[in-house]
Amino acid sequence: MTKKLNVGLIGYGFMGRTHSNAYRRVTNFFDVPYEPVLQVVCGLVEAEAKAFAERWGYKSHTTDWHKVVEDENIDVVEICVPNNLHAEIAIAAAKAGKAICCEKPLALNVPQAEQMVKAVEESGVPNLVSFNYRRVPAVTLAKQLIDEGRLGKIFHYRANFLQDWTISAKVPQGGMATWRLDIKAAGSGVTGDLLAHCIDTAMWHNGPITDVCAMTETFVKERMHAETGKVEPVGIDDACTFLCHYDNGSLGNFESTRYARGHKALYTFEINGEKASIAWDLHDLHRLSYFDHSDQSIVRGWRSIHVTDSDMPYMDKWWVPGLQIGYEHTFVHQVAEFLQNLAEGKSTSPDFREALATQYVCDAVLTSAKNKKWETVKKP
Amino acid sequence: MTKKLNVGLIGYGFMGRTHSNAYRRVTNFFDVPYEPVLQVVCGLVEAEAKAFAERWGYKSHTTDWHKVVEDENIDVVEICVPNNLHAEIAIAAAKAGKAICCEKPLALNVPQAEQMVKAVEESGVPNLVSFNYRRVPAVTLAKQLIDEGRLGKIFHYRANFLQDWTISAKVPQGGMATWRLDIKAAGSGVTGDLLAHCIDTAMWHNGPITDVCAMTETFVKERMHAETGKVEPVGIDDACTFLCHYDNGSLGNFESTRYARGHKALYTFEINGEKASIAWDLHDLHRLSYFDHSDQSIVRGWRSIHVTDSDMPYMDKWWVPGLQIGYEHTFVHQVAEFLQNLAEGKSTSPDFREALATQYVCDAVLTSAKNKKWETVKKP
Amino acid sequence: MTKKLNVGLIGYGFMGRTHSNAYRRVTNFFDVPYEPVLQVVCGLVEAEAKAFAERWGYKSHTTDWHKVVEDENIDVVEICVPNNLHAEIAIAAAKAGKAICCEKPLALNVPQAEQMVKAVEESGVPNLVSFNYRRVPAVTLAKQLIDEGRLGKIFHYRANFLQDWTISAKVPQGGMATWRLDIKAAGSGVTGDLLAHCIDTAMWHNGPITDVCAMTETFVKERMHAETGKVEPVGIDDACTFLCHYDNGSLGNFESTRYARGHKALYTFEINGEKASIAWDLHDLHRLSYFDHSDQSIVRGWRSIHVTDSDMPYMDKWWVPGLQIGYEHTFVHQVAEFLQNLAEGKSTSPDFREALATQYVCDAVLTSAKNKKWETVKKP
Amino acid sequence: MTKKLNVGLIGYGFMGRTHSNAYRRVTNFFDVPYEPVLQVVCGLVEAEAKAFAERWGYKSHTTDWHKVVEDENIDVVEICVPNNLHAEIAIAAAKAGKAICCEKPLALNVPQAEQMVKAVEESGVPNLVSFNYRRVPAVTLAKQLIDEGRLGKIFHYRANFLQDWTISAKVPQGGMATWRLDIKAAGSGVTGDLLAHCIDTAMWHNGPITDVCAMTETFVKERMHAETGKVEPVGIDDACTFLCHYDNGSLGNFESTRYARGHKALYTFEINGEKASIAWDLHDLHRLSYFDHSDQSIVRGWRSIHVTDSDMPYMDKWWVPGLQIGYEHTFVHQVAEFLQNLAEGKSTSPDFREALATQYVCDAVLTSAKNKKWETVKKP
Repeated sequence: MTKKLNVGLIGYGFMGRTHSNAYRRVTNFFDVPYEPVLQVVCGLVEAEAKAFAERWGYKSHTTDWHKVVEDENIDVVEICVPNNLHAEIAIAAAKAGKAICCEKPLALNVPQAEQMVKAVEESGVPNLVSFNYRRVPAVTLAKQLIDEGRLGKIFHYRANFLQDWTISAKVPQGGMATWRLDIKAAGSGVTGDLLAHCIDTAMWHNGPITDVCAMTETFVKERMHAETGKVEPVGIDDACTFLCHYDNGSLGNFESTRYARGHKALYTFEINGEKASIAWDLHDLHRLSYFDHSDQSIVRGWRSIHVTDSDMPYMDKWWVPGLQIGYEHTFVHQVAEFLQNLAEGKSTSPDFREALATQYVCDAVLTSAKNKKWETVKKP
Repeated sequence: MTKKLNVGLIGYGFMGRTHSNAYRRVTNFFDVPYEPVLQVVCGLVEAEAKAFAERWGYKSHTTDWHKVVEDENIDVVEICVPNNLHAEIAIAAAKAGKAICCEKPLALNVPQAEQMVKAVEESGVPNLVSFNYRRVPAVTLAKQLIDEGRLGKIFHYRANFLQDWTISAKVPQGGMATWRLDIKAAGSGVTGDLLAHCIDTAMWHNGPITDVCAMTETFVKERMHAETGKVEPVGIDDACTFLCHYDNGSLGNFESTRYARGHKALYTFEINGEKASIAWDLHDLHRLSYFDHSDQSIVRGWRSIHVTDSDMPYMDKWWVPGLQIGYEHTFVHQVAEFLQNLAEGKSTSPDFREALATQYVCDAVLTSAKNKKWETVKKP
Repeated sequence: MTKKLNVGLIGYGFMGRTHSNAYRRVTNFFDVPYEPVLQVVCGLVEAEAKAFAERWGYKSHTTDWHKVVEDENIDVVEICVPNNLHAEIAIAAAKAGKAICCEKPLALNVPQAEQMVKAVEESGVPNLVSFNYRRVPAVTLAKQLIDEGRLGKIFHYRANFLQDWTISAKVPQGGMATWRLDIKAAGSGVTGDLLAHCIDTAMWHNGPITDVCAMTETFVKERMHAETGKVEPVGIDDACTFLCHYDNGSLGNFESTRYARGHKALYTFEINGEKASIAWDLHDLHRLSYFDHSDQSIVRGWRSIHVTDSDMPYMDKWWVPGLQIGYEHTFVHQVAEFLQNLAEGKSTSPDFREALATQYVCDAVLTSAKNKKWETVKKP
Repeated sequence: MTKKLNVGLIGYGFMGRTHSNAYRRVTNFFDVPYEPVLQVVCGLVEAEAKAFAERWGYKSHTTDWHKVVEDENIDVVEICVPNNLHAEIAIAAAKAGKAICCEKPLALNVPQAEQMVKAVEESGVPNLVSFNYRRVPAVTLAKQLIDEGRLGKIFHYRANFLQDWTISAKVPQGGMATWRLDIKAAGSGVTGDLLAHCIDTAMWHNGPITDVCAMTETFVKERMHAETGKVEPVGIDDACTFLCHYDNGSLGNFESTRYARGHKALYTFEINGEKASIAWDLHDLHRLSYFDHSDQSIVRGWRSIHVTDSDMPYMDKWWVPGLQIGYEHTFVHQVAEFLQNLAEGKSTSPDFREALATQYVCDAVLTSAKNKKWETVKKP
């Protein structure tokens, strides 16, 4: 008989929904060793927490995250709150012996991230950071193709993450909907929010980053704070571009901005190897572009692989060939593996330590931009 | 307090999964007047029915569909079995006063379909036929653009539905996995299975079809029967192409085949109007192509609309701009509207009578192909 | 030393320009056995003929085509006038022993076309009909892939030719710019003008067409005549769609219209074979889409072949990989082969007899549409 | 009567062909004030120069470029030789009072480029540097859209130029076919060859570049010299990526490499403005992607503008809507404007001084890469 696993969710925003949905769906599609039970959701506004609990089937709600962490009945703590709260909650949860799934980026900054790693490693709790894009089937397929050696020596790994939602100077900062624009809540702008995804996937695909040289910009210098109504300086980076070297000798080029008119969530990457190349973008996430130089020359061309067949990563669990899945399924994949590993007492990749490596890169990027110099990246 | 609605599912195949998933998810995303309760699933093989019930949370299972239809506790009957069983079950369910959601095509043939319409209309039960592709947000948006008059007079409406899964002569006919190739279970080949979708959407977008002229082909003449192991003649149409006129004076061109190498489920349509054109395909279902002749000439071009913003049909219920949904969501949309209408005692479009119109077109298409003549389409 | 070849051009319209350009360029890129000399251009309006001669380097001009045909100095007659003049000029040129390159479609109708074939075959003059799209490198590559057996048995060959330039009822018929809308000058509408291209390429790729069933429509029933100013009934087909069988057992589906808003010259075809499929369109003529089922499944997808490498048909003559050529180059390829064959006294494919086969299909299509019946296609 | 203009071409390689073709074609399509006469071609190997002269219609040939420059009969000198010869020839031609069209990049390095500017400005000869991609109609259209203010404030201008032809270590350096890999002949690798194009267009579109920070790499460290057969160190940059600021406050990100498997000549740019965005790539050069935020939200999307209509830049000179032109036409456009300006004694943009600005950027890029520091760009 499948064991129950009691889940406590902290944060009922956008990420709270994606994580709840993942727990609600995983057993319908994946054979997992636990039956997740949504025990409690925690959030700032009680009425909203209550409504969220009802909609998603949480048995109770609270406005005090300590109650979740300290609840003996809870097996897993899901951290879906703004970045400035990750460290405190995660460390408390680790001390309380809870398994932890924490939203990305791991922390506000490197010192917090290091403490978090220390906490989970000392307590030995299984942990995971929700860099969900690794588990888009096409992105996982890219990893598989690289690991099989199909690309040969890699020369270039480029990634962009382009949005356009903050172009208007009327968008406020702070508050529940726009905390990502508030340096206190977010720690950084696009670097921690968007480039962290690109960096996590890039290092998973292509190995560690050696050094970086970055440029950041804040196009809108002041914004009203959503809670206080006061106009305050904007502390985050609206845009960030950086060059890098990888330890394997390849070159990297990353760019993220929230000022790329026409793009909502256009995360793209392209990898150029000696023998083959790969490209992908989040706006058509179910496709992978692949160029194989070993094809006969007159029929050689970029292939658009519709990643829906049952031999593609994760796709045997879903529908039939030709029928695409979407964004939310990445969280289901993540939870499925998290549950599998939990049963063996193991963490799931990327765990806190891996996420620390990404935090080191982000930190080096921001330092480089500030100092206008190349920075060597610390290794975890 | 939300009322419970007891659901009985007949058929645990591919469609049984999509319908179950829709009921499991709808309350998390839509505000509906009922809380669906998955009461019973019915299927041929008891062990499989039991496993399905466990995976999807049905309280019980059975191998006798009469028990579902006759169960006083059941409010809604979901018919997800091969086409040859639709009529008998639906008529029994109608007589038992159940609301009905029936998979497409409505029936094996016109006489059955007419009896089914009669049954639901005499009993007055709310009913729905699951032509789910109407509720792809991009397809619904197309309907909205047409209704707003943006296309002006329509000249052409083309649709294709291309697959490639039966090219091998080793694919059997009959049985649970391949009943769609068995004329007795399916009634026809691509016409009822695939073109029925295209025809339903086309008439929803562009109004009734007047007359048709069709060509069908069966490329593989004999296949082994999956259950008997005997090689038998193939009775279905492997491919079907037809010309038609619409009542509004526009021209239609439809093609479906399971012999289009490289396409898994490539349902496409293109509509050419005096002022604008629209194109869409199921392999990138979250995009709508739109050409507006009123654009200034030097910046005029086909627009690729990424149908993910919250002002797009259904999309306020899901995630954030740029993040796509997939195939299965169409069934959630369908169930959300079905439940809303149920609370008002109404059927949901396309109901049995609308589906009968599609059956008339399919019937005329098959007759035309047989007789090699134009056929006038009967109207419901 | 290269021999001179004296060319006489009849018709200085759009096609007169493409043919002149081809003769002016061919020796720069291809090694041909003749040096073409542009001797005389003939057209209706003397001032325009004179200006054309000056721009393109013709030594003289005339308004009487008989003078071109009867000129002993002329080796080749290029026929670039409206369709109703093809037969008379071609027959006269054949009798005068001239090599002939005639614009498509071969003639107004089948009787004319048969007389033209008779004339060139009796006189033995080398001849060519300018179905130029065969010589788009990507289209030629498609032929090569088919001939190599890469597609296996072919199931489907679809082609469309979509335009939108006559949607406005204010576009006149007749005259020099719009003779294609005048039934007397053009013989038919989209069938002879556009579908003739599709049919020629289709039979080149996929063999003879057995029978057809067509539907035509004239959306705008009356138009002003450009020369008389009188409003007259429109005699041409604005749109034509037809089904067909090929002798090899595959199915065809063709559509052409000048009422497809958003498409200027969107000639497309797709071929589905047992082992592979091919697709192409004229709006990106330098690309060929190719799907090879023998690719390993996890990296299988439609390939977009950028047909610019030097091992692609004709491309060794042009620039370097990655740099595309355009529409006009098809005429250069055609002339290069015409000159090569001339030196051996041979006709160039498609010659008049091959073009007669296309004329038979067009004739059957128009008859079928008129009679609303399937028509068997006559073979040349 | 049109005046004759005597042209002397130095260099019969790839660029010699594109320039010759442009002169041969320009009068057929454009109304220009001169009739160009191809007088003499100069190249290293006499037999090849002779063959080139015959193919392209040059009246004579020579192996000594001084004879071209000093020939009183020559009006225009076309410089199509490796970069290390540009300065000497251009300065001599300027002193001899010839109009000059010089291939890009202007020079091996900044000191040479400054001398060349001085020479043409002192002598007052009309001059032009052949950054031909400005005159792709879609690229010119982009300039027009920017100048009309449609993009509003610009935030980002990204460009890439990706090739893959030098991945094999067996490709030699030096010699006539591969001088671009020889530091002595080329001055740099991708920076001068490919990024120079991107930089020229970027500054034309978006104004001057303020400062840069670059990274270069030489993946293959040694190559055989094509002439000597000796293996020598490779001095060029195989890849170069740089960040920059523009004077208008926008951010730039450029990358070029010859190690991007699958790309032959993939020059791309994307411009993100407050109100609209633009994207383009050379592999489909006849299309411009355009996103206009002022479109109504439910029909907003990236537009693919097929730049073939007669109201598009240059396109009234060519064929009819829907029919694309190719790479070589950019040189025809360039020559048409060069001839127009010559008649008025004016230089054509980009002239030597504008090209010097690009040279300053390239120089700063290479210095930055060497010193691993940001570099301020000198202004001409």
